[in-house]
Amino acid sequence: MGKRVAVVLAGCGVFDGSEIHEASAALVHLSRGGAEVKIFAPNIEQRDVVNHLKGSPTDEKRNVLVESARLARGNIQDLAELKVSEFDAVIFPGGFGVAKNLCSWAVDGKNCTVNEHVNSTLQAFHKAKKPIGLCCISPVLAAKVFPGCEVTVGQDKNVDGRFPDAETASAIAELGCKHICKDVSESHVDKANKIVTTCAFMCKAPLHQIFDGIGTMVEEVLKLA
Amino acid sequence: MGKRVAVVLAGCGVFDGSEIHEASAALVHLSRGGAEVKIFAPNIEQRDVVNHLKGSPTDEKRNVLVESARLARGNIQDLAELKVSEFDAVIFPGGFGVAKNLCSWAVDGKNCTVNEHVNSTLQAFHKAKKPIGLCCISPVLAAKVFPGCEVTVGQDKNVDGRFPDAETASAIAELGCKHICKDVSESHVDKANKIVTTCAFMCKAPLHQIFDGIGTMVEEVLKLA
Repeated sequence: MGKRVAVVLAGCGVFDGSEIHEASAALVHLSRGGAEVKIFAPNIEQRDVVNHLKGSPTDEKRNVLVESARLARGNIQDLAELKVSEFDAVIFPGGFGVAKNLCSWAVDGKNCTVNEHVNSTLQAFHKAKKPIGLCCISPVLAAKVFPGCEVTVGQDKNVDGRFPDAETASAIAELGCKHICKDVSESHVDKANKIVTTCAFMCKAPLHQIFDGIGTMVEEVLKLA
Repeated sequence: MGKRVAVVLAGCGVFDGSEIHEASAALVHLSRGGAEVKIFAPNIEQRDVVNHLKGSPTDEKRNVLVESARLARGNIQDLAELKVSEFDAVIFPGGFGVAKNLCSWAVDGKNCTVNEHVNSTLQAFHKAKKPIGLCCISPVLAAKVFPGCEVTVGQDKNVDGRFPDAETASAIAELGCKHICKDVSESHVDKANKIVTTCAFMCKAPLHQIFDGIGTMVEEVLKLA
């Protein structure tokens, strides 16, 4: 029987929701790994709606669960309904929506608050010793909720101009966590906490390299599950 | 130097735009194939906006180019600006948005009209003997614009309950085209017309099989380019 994996989304679109290619990559790799996947998102209003053509916010209101349903082809549930006993692992793709809708990192940085259902989901998987996979900016969720854990968001310096958001690594260290430098093709496994992270679009890399990096994260999560 | 490929989108979300996983898969395979990709969409209002959680239309208005920009991470252009001389091939991912926004197939079936910029793009690539790749429902665009061409949308019968939209094959035949039965992992190449098609989500299959089928389509397009 395949591993049962919950995937938690934050909307649909890199600037105000889940990064679409990261979410899709995770689902492709989970499918190939034979996992039974259910998709969840919080039933809350998005922090903002960004016109992705102009890169600027609009006056629109959109709901995180309703927009995440686009990525899930309609097959999605309210995160409040997630029962940890029904899953072997959980995965959080990245995108600014994680830092806007799942927590307030985009506004408050390391002083952010975490959505109550996201927080309780993370705590419950951790307590049950079930693996947690995160990519891109999502590792800040683990850094905030599990002080002392090890995560990667890529490099802690803007190596070759490929890691423009390298200061995120410092913020993670300030939270009392250990940032591990990894390239886009790699994941880091915090064995003690069963937390698997990869930098994905935190690195300026060709899409297939990001796809493959997420593949290593999914593979490690399934191994630990 | 990599092949220069235009990808044409129809919004963002299976029920009113481009099918997200098909679009992402095409972009991953193009990246792996070393292609230089530019993304386009028509600057028009969507035919409708579907709440993907409920599966029902809403009163919202959204623009095809603006929503497609979510898939393109903002790096997208108006389809009206596409210059065929700057590309070696063009690819149209599927999703209901193709049948709603790029043509009127969703409402008019084989009597549909095709968006003027979609029509002129297809005609120009065909005239220049540059390959055209299409998946899922997008092959109906080729069937409408190039009578006599060969395409696949999967099977012409609902084999094993995996092809619930098999009647699309009959409609394609009624347009004077030849429908070729193929499984989800395969593409069909119409060598005379340089049209490459694969059924993708027209088949109920695990996501990684759809991803791989789109990979064969992209590979054939790049070979012909």
